[in-house]
Amino acid sequence: MSMLLDIAGFHAAYIRAIDQDDLERWPDFFADPSFYRITTAANVAEGLEAGVVYADSHGMLRDRITALRRANIYERQRYRHIVGLPALLDTPMRAETPFLVARVMHDGKTDLFATGVYRDEFVTMNGALKLARRDVILDSTRIDTLLAIPL
Amino acid sequence: MSMLLDIAGFHAAYIRAIDQDDLERWPDFFADPSFYRITTAANVAEGLEAGVVYADSHGMLRDRITALRRANIYERQRYRHIVGLPALLDTPMRAETPFLVARVMHDGKTDLFATGVYRDEFVTMNGALKLARRDVILDSTRIDTLLAIPL
Amino acid sequence: MSMLLDIAGFHAAYIRAIDQDDLERWPDFFADPSFYRITTAANVAEGLEAGVVYADSHGMLRDRITALRRANIYERQRYRHIVGLPALLDTPMRAETPFLVARVMHDGKTDLFATGVYRDEFVTMNGALKLARRDVILDSTRIDTLLAIPL
Repeated sequence: MSMLLDIAGFHAAYIRAIDQDDLERWPDFFADPSFYRITTAANVAEGLEAGVVYADSHGMLRDRITALRRANIYERQRYRHIVGLPALLDTPMRAETPFLVARVMHDGKTDLFATGVYRDEFVTMNGALKLARRDVILDSTRIDTLLAIPL
Repeated sequence: MSMLLDIAGFHAAYIRAIDQDDLERWPDFFADPSFYRITTAANVAEGLEAGVVYADSHGMLRDRITALRRANIYERQRYRHIVGLPALLDTPMRAETPFLVARVMHDGKTDLFATGVYRDEFVTMNGALKLARRDVILDSTRIDTLLAIPL
Repeated sequence: MSMLLDIAGFHAAYIRAIDQDDLERWPDFFADPSFYRITTAANVAEGLEAGVVYADSHGMLRDRITALRRANIYERQRYRHIVGLPALLDTPMRAETPFLVARVMHDGKTDLFATGVYRDEFVTMNGALKLARRDVILDSTRIDTLLAIPL
């Protein structure tokens, strides 16, 4: 399979785990240690390294899920990730992939929750792709409510 | 071609037939007999087998199009399906693929009409993929107006 | 690589250039001369050849970017293109690909800006795909504000 197909398959499995509430499998998509952050396009444009969410190990990713399960915010609404076609970057094992997330409220109303791009660096472990680094770069600067779900 | 590519091509042709109002070709994407239903994630979570729309033959699928043409609801607005990347399941010939549907009203206003996932089981007939079964699993429970168009 | 993958890669690179404000690279995705127009599904249904935006050379495409930079409209909001899976048409080197564009306003509000389909004819130049013709067919007839960004 080509790299493009491999990455497409990776994304499909990643968002499926999240959208069907299989959150405990989320850390498995990352190498350990790895780098994960959620930031904004505005922050990236200013060269800011900080993110609104940050993790560098499976332990930190798992803690996030545990907190989410306790807060129980996730249950009240559903999310649907749609991932576009990945753009392979010139550097091997790197890709950028646009995404959007729709949110379905408990009363059934659906809105466009978030858009942005995954800037990813992959490694291969036992023949499977893992994220060595994922920068989730959100288009919007209004991100307070975004902290609820993995992106 | 890989299975992932074959399925991607299938989805692209399927939604294209619907979105360009080529509805009479819709049954051709299914085996005959086959299983088609539209249901909700809430129903699936409760193990309910019933769907809000159900068909098990080309005849039933065609009837649906005939009813739709008579009602002429479809003409008043346009729909645009966007299908994400398919996730191949462990069982051969099965995949889950997220989708969203945007609706463009006659006055030009566009909104997010529906999101969900296609849970599909394929068979090969004369070298082409056909749906042996498609469960259209909607994220929202507000589905009354959804009955207008094929999903 | 298969044609489907080649086209998927083309789309990914095309929308990435636009969404990360690399607009000056936009003409490079076209042959020169070529044909580019933005039109509406209603116009196409009536057989109207005219488009609301039209270009047939790199020069005209570049002029459009220059005008856009001067007007500085693009800076005030962000756009995010999501491209679905391409449908290969029966004619070689032709494909149709659905897309949607989300718009993120300066205050962070995100809405569904446009949906439609790219109807494309490709040529190969030095091993890379270029657009010989792109018809951007919008689902909505409300297109005045659409003129701001390349689609």
